[in-house]
Amino acid sequence: MKNNTETSTQTFASIPMQAVGPFKLIGDVETDNLMVPMATYETPLWPSVARGARVAAHSGGIRVTVIDERMTRSILLQAPHAGIAAKHLASLQNRQDEMQDVVSQSSRFAKLIDTHFQVVGNLIYLRLEFHTGDASGHNMATNAADKLIPWILENYSDLEYVSISANYCTDKKVSAVNGILGRGKYVVCECTIPEKFCKRFLKTTPQALVDLHIKKDLIGSIVSGGLRSANAHVANMLLGFYLATGQDAANIVEGSQAINHAEVTPEGDLYFSTTLPNMIVGTVGNGKGLDFVLENLELLGCNDRNAEPGANARRLACIAGATAFCGELSLLAAQTNPGELMQAHIKLERAQHS
Amino acid sequence: MKNNTETSTQTFASIPMQAVGPFKLIGDVETDNLMVPMATYETPLWPSVARGARVAAHSGGIRVTVIDERMTRSILLQAPHAGIAAKHLASLQNRQDEMQDVVSQSSRFAKLIDTHFQVVGNLIYLRLEFHTGDASGHNMATNAADKLIPWILENYSDLEYVSISANYCTDKKVSAVNGILGRGKYVVCECTIPEKFCKRFLKTTPQALVDLHIKKDLIGSIVSGGLRSANAHVANMLLGFYLATGQDAANIVEGSQAINHAEVTPEGDLYFSTTLPNMIVGTVGNGKGLDFVLENLELLGCNDRNAEPGANARRLACIAGATAFCGELSLLAAQTNPGELMQAHIKLERAQHS
Amino acid sequence: MKNNTETSTQTFASIPMQAVGPFKLIGDVETDNLMVPMATYETPLWPSVARGARVAAHSGGIRVTVIDERMTRSILLQAPHAGIAAKHLASLQNRQDEMQDVVSQSSRFAKLIDTHFQVVGNLIYLRLEFHTGDASGHNMATNAADKLIPWILENYSDLEYVSISANYCTDKKVSAVNGILGRGKYVVCECTIPEKFCKRFLKTTPQALVDLHIKKDLIGSIVSGGLRSANAHVANMLLGFYLATGQDAANIVEGSQAINHAEVTPEGDLYFSTTLPNMIVGTVGNGKGLDFVLENLELLGCNDRNAEPGANARRLACIAGATAFCGELSLLAAQTNPGELMQAHIKLERAQHS
Amino acid sequence: MKNNTETSTQTFASIPMQAVGPFKLIGDVETDNLMVPMATYETPLWPSVARGARVAAHSGGIRVTVIDERMTRSILLQAPHAGIAAKHLASLQNRQDEMQDVVSQSSRFAKLIDTHFQVVGNLIYLRLEFHTGDASGHNMATNAADKLIPWILENYSDLEYVSISANYCTDKKVSAVNGILGRGKYVVCECTIPEKFCKRFLKTTPQALVDLHIKKDLIGSIVSGGLRSANAHVANMLLGFYLATGQDAANIVEGSQAINHAEVTPEGDLYFSTTLPNMIVGTVGNGKGLDFVLENLELLGCNDRNAEPGANARRLACIAGATAFCGELSLLAAQTNPGELMQAHIKLERAQHS
Repeated sequence: MKNNTETSTQTFASIPMQAVGPFKLIGDVETDNLMVPMATYETPLWPSVARGARVAAHSGGIRVTVIDERMTRSILLQAPHAGIAAKHLASLQNRQDEMQDVVSQSSRFAKLIDTHFQVVGNLIYLRLEFHTGDASGHNMATNAADKLIPWILENYSDLEYVSISANYCTDKKVSAVNGILGRGKYVVCECTIPEKFCKRFLKTTPQALVDLHIKKDLIGSIVSGGLRSANAHVANMLLGFYLATGQDAANIVEGSQAINHAEVTPEGDLYFSTTLPNMIVGTVGNGKGLDFVLENLELLGCNDRNAEPGANARRLACIAGATAFCGELSLLAAQTNPGELMQAHIKLERAQHS
Repeated sequence: MKNNTETSTQTFASIPMQAVGPFKLIGDVETDNLMVPMATYETPLWPSVARGARVAAHSGGIRVTVIDERMTRSILLQAPHAGIAAKHLASLQNRQDEMQDVVSQSSRFAKLIDTHFQVVGNLIYLRLEFHTGDASGHNMATNAADKLIPWILENYSDLEYVSISANYCTDKKVSAVNGILGRGKYVVCECTIPEKFCKRFLKTTPQALVDLHIKKDLIGSIVSGGLRSANAHVANMLLGFYLATGQDAANIVEGSQAINHAEVTPEGDLYFSTTLPNMIVGTVGNGKGLDFVLENLELLGCNDRNAEPGANARRLACIAGATAFCGELSLLAAQTNPGELMQAHIKLERAQHS
Repeated sequence: MKNNTETSTQTFASIPMQAVGPFKLIGDVETDNLMVPMATYETPLWPSVARGARVAAHSGGIRVTVIDERMTRSILLQAPHAGIAAKHLASLQNRQDEMQDVVSQSSRFAKLIDTHFQVVGNLIYLRLEFHTGDASGHNMATNAADKLIPWILENYSDLEYVSISANYCTDKKVSAVNGILGRGKYVVCECTIPEKFCKRFLKTTPQALVDLHIKKDLIGSIVSGGLRSANAHVANMLLGFYLATGQDAANIVEGSQAINHAEVTPEGDLYFSTTLPNMIVGTVGNGKGLDFVLENLELLGCNDRNAEPGANARRLACIAGATAFCGELSLLAAQTNPGELMQAHIKLERAQHS
Repeated sequence: MKNNTETSTQTFASIPMQAVGPFKLIGDVETDNLMVPMATYETPLWPSVARGARVAAHSGGIRVTVIDERMTRSILLQAPHAGIAAKHLASLQNRQDEMQDVVSQSSRFAKLIDTHFQVVGNLIYLRLEFHTGDASGHNMATNAADKLIPWILENYSDLEYVSISANYCTDKKVSAVNGILGRGKYVVCECTIPEKFCKRFLKTTPQALVDLHIKKDLIGSIVSGGLRSANAHVANMLLGFYLATGQDAANIVEGSQAINHAEVTPEGDLYFSTTLPNMIVGTVGNGKGLDFVLENLELLGCNDRNAEPGANARRLACIAGATAFCGELSLLAAQTNPGELMQAHIKLERAQHS
């Protein structure tokens, strides 16, 4: 690698990648025999996710549902005092159409769908929320905000600019706001796995897995001082999927705030779900032009030029969620058996290095 | 890319990488003219970090301090009731030497340095804390836990196994416990930047930057419902650094929980700091055997075979922290100026694509 | 006190109470020379709050602004799967008028103003948000929910009842949702205090107080793993005020999640503010019929029978917020001076006991 | 009530109070037929807690276990840079005996048992942790800190004073630190309730209650963005108990961060527990000198002059925890039955007002 400050030649970090599966999805995406690429240094992840995919496919597939989608940017303005802040915010609520006109100048895909705010003293944290088509939308939202700020300052001349981004967005940082108000795709992945498949594929029982889920994902996360997070290792699957599909993988920070829910059904089977309330993905934008990324998006069916705007990204989100689901299911199953986790690591790593 | 389930050939995701700098560090690492590799799809990050490095080098360098280091695994056991849990935990407190004997069988580097626990009803979340030499230590800690569990169950026969990992560790998930009890390296990065360098390199003033920091990093994070997090985009720098140095980048989830602190000094200069209380890095283990990773560790001076165990990893942690510091300083400076952020993105991305 | 199980005679706990002030308020409440009652065992609180009130009155008064008001109850329903949950939630969004008709049967004051939801697997957490006139509204919201549930179950027959209250409300528990989506009154209290009054009344400087605020309220709360909380002791003032005015004081849990913001103005004065985004108060309901409570509500001008519904409660909220503001200002000032806090406690408690 | 600023005569707020029970406790407190006083405006709480006490007494009593106890104060110091902070903190670790000598001058009960710290840039948040006998210990800890600060500044002359209290304590504010490092008493309350008693006394089944607990206390709290909190209304019980026993009830803020854990036993019975990891109580200090308080402490057996220091307070903590346990059990049971909650409120309030 070259090391010059100004003229440094770009090289590449080569991260091990493999397609795993096959996945079967139902619900908002209907597909079968889908192979999902993941790039990671933690290669024991591949067979673990594949195991989850396999048992889910035998059980009828993973049901994926998109609950919501939006991208946000929070600007920060300052008023003479909170009374004026409140007055202007009330006014802005009634001018969303005018604001959309301004937004339209920045992009034909950006649609202002909602705003939320916080007032702290005389400070206004205004969270602008957009539909951004197939882009994850960070830049589109920033660009729209960049157009809206001068318009707001012109229309409300006693407000002052503080920042174009004020952490109430919030981007690549832990928060509760992204889950509660939404940022990225809100995806739920579910599957009911017959008891016999639990035993055959996962070497565990529905009851053992639910019991571990409650004590680890739920209570364990609560005692750790977690925040809107109840899972085992969703970050791992998102990282692998994001690197393979050209996503900005720093978004795994918020993506990691996923919530598993599992129960034993009246029939004695395992209902398992992974909910990702604020997962950021896109099929256009930075990183998407690289050859291997395009190839992977193609493989996943997320590069359909005839699809309506946003459809490719929603499909990608569902597959990302399903990948997380499989990794969760498989690791939790492993952890119900003393020693299995460590043995699996040792075996897989030996296999790799031999 | 091949797509077979079982026999899938491994390929590679090629992430754009560049070395940026030069960095000057003082304190626990003394170095100058260090170039730091970062791999990312978000390539505007490179010049942004380089700008931060440049102004800090002109200002005497970034002071790096390692406050603490440890790796953890929390096992989960169940007692007949909390009274028995309390009794056995008190007993275990006095048997750390015996526990270390058990740990020693799992690795010659793992040293049990402390334990903490939570009791919830009859459940015991026991957090085992280790020194792990130059490894980030996830597997070393898991392996040690795998040895300790049978020993505990044998010595306290009324305890039952629930899980080898119970989210009180906590790994790759948002938490407060990692910052409060420690996990990974605790690194502080500081620099006092003369007002004139603020203006020359960062196009801003100490007062403007401090003001933005307070309203965005501190108050903005608080209103977003953040958790032990007060920064702009530490996750971006850690991701780029982690991918370039063979780290498990899913650890940016907890690494992102970093805290900036800035003030205007009595002399009118800018004191700026980024504190990363729980940042995970290692110089040996998964991912470190790849050629480009070895080359990068070499470049950073973190592959010194004569160094005492742990020294390479501590050096790597300091450089990672300094990289985060530079990105924070540079982005906050940019956001003090209306429009600069968007213009920079547009300009850099055009430059790349032309 | 009598101790029989079933027939135990009710007695009274007598909590020391004093009216402190005088307060001057401007903005959404305009009043002067207002004395505010507080009941507490921690009697050093009285002179501390009085000092804050005094300096604020000299500085032109505390500006109070009501940003929002609502009371909530989150019901919990279960769908066959998330796809059906999403479909029914979309349908409910369009039937808010019908839902209001149902709500109207439960109370003439309850108005359904918004709904929000979370879907976790197949679970629906539906947060019903109401205006509730002068009542804090817990029972009104519960009662409305009690009417809405059968209507929902009838209209969406594949949904099942799980609970009338599911912690997404959230009542008397720490959360981020109450600050982000609102619960109770959202009140901002502000005042700019001339430097000379800072020195005369508070024995400190604007710079010293702002510095302490940043390091204690902001950074200190962040490192403690706080959640949407940045103050010194708002809970103390709310407790005293709530007990004196017949409020359900368990609501100080969420009320304590208040955020101070302070800066030195260009003129060298102190801008200080306390924002209480989710503070629960009412002027009718449980506790309000006691003689001393009625007397106190009267004293505060919050028992005006000619006021429009909700006006008395909003006024009460502003006064509660101003009381918190004064206690914050006064304690922070005290803590800028080494030893003052302890000396004040000792002196006041001696005075009491002598 | 008199309203003069300076000379205002103190009056009393009379809060309705009743003793409920009878309670049976086993484990760290062994007692039977104990009546527990609670003062509250929310009087439906009394029969609800009594119901929980009754079913627990029939089931063998509530097992109470004290896991830990301490009171804390975090002082804030500033170093020239983090390197010096680290050096001095390492030195202080080895001088705990000398520090205890200083502490001894402030009180014969205060014992320094541990310290923890956070370094943020050049700031040191030093958390001093004490045993404080039968006092809740706020003032004792503050007083000890007041003595320690000059000693530290003298011994480490390049450190500067910032504040005697810096929110890393943390007092009366939401945090994760209090649960993780401890503050107040750490109490676990447990009982296994036979299925038949669940039905007879609680009108529900073990399975229904556990199911609701998981979906409301655990998942509901997680989606609300809760922090180390998993209960229904612990704040209510603590408030009532605190007011009746002369406690500083603002401490319910942190006390509310309690965690329920429930499961169906292999025998089909209900294991139910409430864990209060950081609950603050004392039997001496402010508020304890009032006649009705003394009478209540006497009633509870917490005014034993022959007990060793701390024993009265630990007993009080166990009873407080048991009271919270009973309220939790009873409300959760009620919420498993549609309509029961509202009907109970209506019935009880009518009964009161008639």
